[in-house]
Amino acid sequence: MIRGSLKKVVVIGGGTGNFVVLKGLKKYPLDLTAIVSMADDGGSTGILRDELGVLPPGDVRQCLVALSNSSRMMRSLINYRFENGGLGGHSFGNLLLSALEKVTGSFEKAVEEAGKILYIKGKVIPVTTNQVRLKMLLNNRKLLEGEKDIYLSQEIDQGYKSIYLEPYPKVNPRVIEEIGNADLIVIGPGGLHTSLIPNLLVEGVCEALCNSDAKKIFVVNLMNRKGQTTGYKTSHYLSELVRFLGKDVFDHILINTKKPPKSLIDVYAEEGDLVENDLDDDRVIFADMLGGLTQVVKRDLLKRNLIRHDSRKLAEELTKIVDYL
Amino acid sequence: MIRGSLKKVVVIGGGTGNFVVLKGLKKYPLDLTAIVSMADDGGSTGILRDELGVLPPGDVRQCLVALSNSSRMMRSLINYRFENGGLGGHSFGNLLLSALEKVTGSFEKAVEEAGKILYIKGKVIPVTTNQVRLKMLLNNRKLLEGEKDIYLSQEIDQGYKSIYLEPYPKVNPRVIEEIGNADLIVIGPGGLHTSLIPNLLVEGVCEALCNSDAKKIFVVNLMNRKGQTTGYKTSHYLSELVRFLGKDVFDHILINTKKPPKSLIDVYAEEGDLVENDLDDDRVIFADMLGGLTQVVKRDLLKRNLIRHDSRKLAEELTKIVDYL
Repeated sequence: MIRGSLKKVVVIGGGTGNFVVLKGLKKYPLDLTAIVSMADDGGSTGILRDELGVLPPGDVRQCLVALSNSSRMMRSLINYRFENGGLGGHSFGNLLLSALEKVTGSFEKAVEEAGKILYIKGKVIPVTTNQVRLKMLLNNRKLLEGEKDIYLSQEIDQGYKSIYLEPYPKVNPRVIEEIGNADLIVIGPGGLHTSLIPNLLVEGVCEALCNSDAKKIFVVNLMNRKGQTTGYKTSHYLSELVRFLGKDVFDHILINTKKPPKSLIDVYAEEGDLVENDLDDDRVIFADMLGGLTQVVKRDLLKRNLIRHDSRKLAEELTKIVDYL
Repeated sequence: MIRGSLKKVVVIGGGTGNFVVLKGLKKYPLDLTAIVSMADDGGSTGILRDELGVLPPGDVRQCLVALSNSSRMMRSLINYRFENGGLGGHSFGNLLLSALEKVTGSFEKAVEEAGKILYIKGKVIPVTTNQVRLKMLLNNRKLLEGEKDIYLSQEIDQGYKSIYLEPYPKVNPRVIEEIGNADLIVIGPGGLHTSLIPNLLVEGVCEALCNSDAKKIFVVNLMNRKGQTTGYKTSHYLSELVRFLGKDVFDHILINTKKPPKSLIDVYAEEGDLVENDLDDDRVIFADMLGGLTQVVKRDLLKRNLIRHDSRKLAEELTKIVDYL
């Protein structure tokens, strides 16, 4: 195992959960790597995949912004969404990644160049560079074709037969290398079926995780998503991941202790319920990691963002573990 | 007049002509400023103006790329045009400028930030930051509304009553300052009615040009555009500019002497004819400034690009004049 002077932390996921973890960890002297799911096919990302044949830029964009040391203006630019006409709904960062992919002929090269433009700390690595779709066969035999359909389904907690990427993708070899060289690996928080598991469905990723000497941390979500993980407790999340991993690889499970105010839980009721904890072994770390309402969140007024981890508090707990390594 | 140690060269125009001049001059130790027409409303630029309400980015983009010292990859990115779907036809650089305008709330600020991203040498300044349309009333009473309509018209050489910007725009005060402080001012080559004259239609520009102590150079086009300037000789170009300027301000007139091969002229015949020279006074500088066929041109196969100035040769002639200042 080759190590530099900084501890090597690998964060696996996609979407907003990854953003919160990376944003918090960026402030510490760590060698950071984000491994990102390539299953997104909704919104701006979905349109770009369909119309331009590019790889999905959305989750990568969020990670790049989380790790960026560029000006606030540059980060606003990358997240800027066009509002009207043929461009309506596209975020500028997605267009940047797609144009870079076309110009350089490679999505990985595009991510690298965008990383330079944004002065990112660390690395962002797509879990695969194959074009894949996430599919899910429900117990009622309905086939959900694409991450967007799965994200919007209200029937997943009725049970599913299988979830898979099509075609079965080759892993990005850098991912295996990064997992092998890591000191700490963080999975979660994030959409269980739409952000976390899609990484585990790529050839070789679970095996690499099982074989890695890194400490592995699972950060459990704060909220269940209605129709997806309704009524899930912490043990359900864990056992769902273990099912794909083949064994329980986690050294620690990070669980938030601070309850959001009841008024917020009520607002959230249509979206989902709080994740209750039913785990209590030596591996579990309990801590207040609840985020406050930021100005940004107030402006967005996205319900699903109202209850989320505080990136600073979460990073504090993660770096405590790093300090023991 | 405040002057730094470098001679101050101001290039006025818009479009491909400006690009050729700036690209050539960039290599010399000069303090460069590009003043750019804001009349473009065709193609990607027109769609962005209509759908997003932004100022026209296209001509500014070309000047930024001409002055850029960034990597070839970055310049390719800025010029990259999306090919399909809702994004089809948009150049990435146009989207960058429009998104920056939205994020910063100011087109000038957007140009400045894009200039930083592209490591440009010198400055790019929009002639006005008012939203304007170029209009032209033909002798046959047809009203051409917009630069695109004027560019496509085949009737302009039948005569026009007036050409104007609507609403009558306020000049960008930095333009007056730059013209006042210039050592050398270059006008042309470029579309006479669509790139050069639109700058002279902005309040105060002609007066500033008449009052400036700078040496003023007119670089005459190589080709006439059919239906626009058919049969124009060098004196026609000059007198058309002088009509707007109010007086003949030019210290030198740069005229190409090298004839393109007949085969190329034939290819070009549907687009227009060679500009013949009928001027021969002390101000005229004759030189071979004809461009060869570059790889880029071969790839593009745009007829209108086949016969154009060579940026290196043109810059050599211009810097000879600077050396005498």
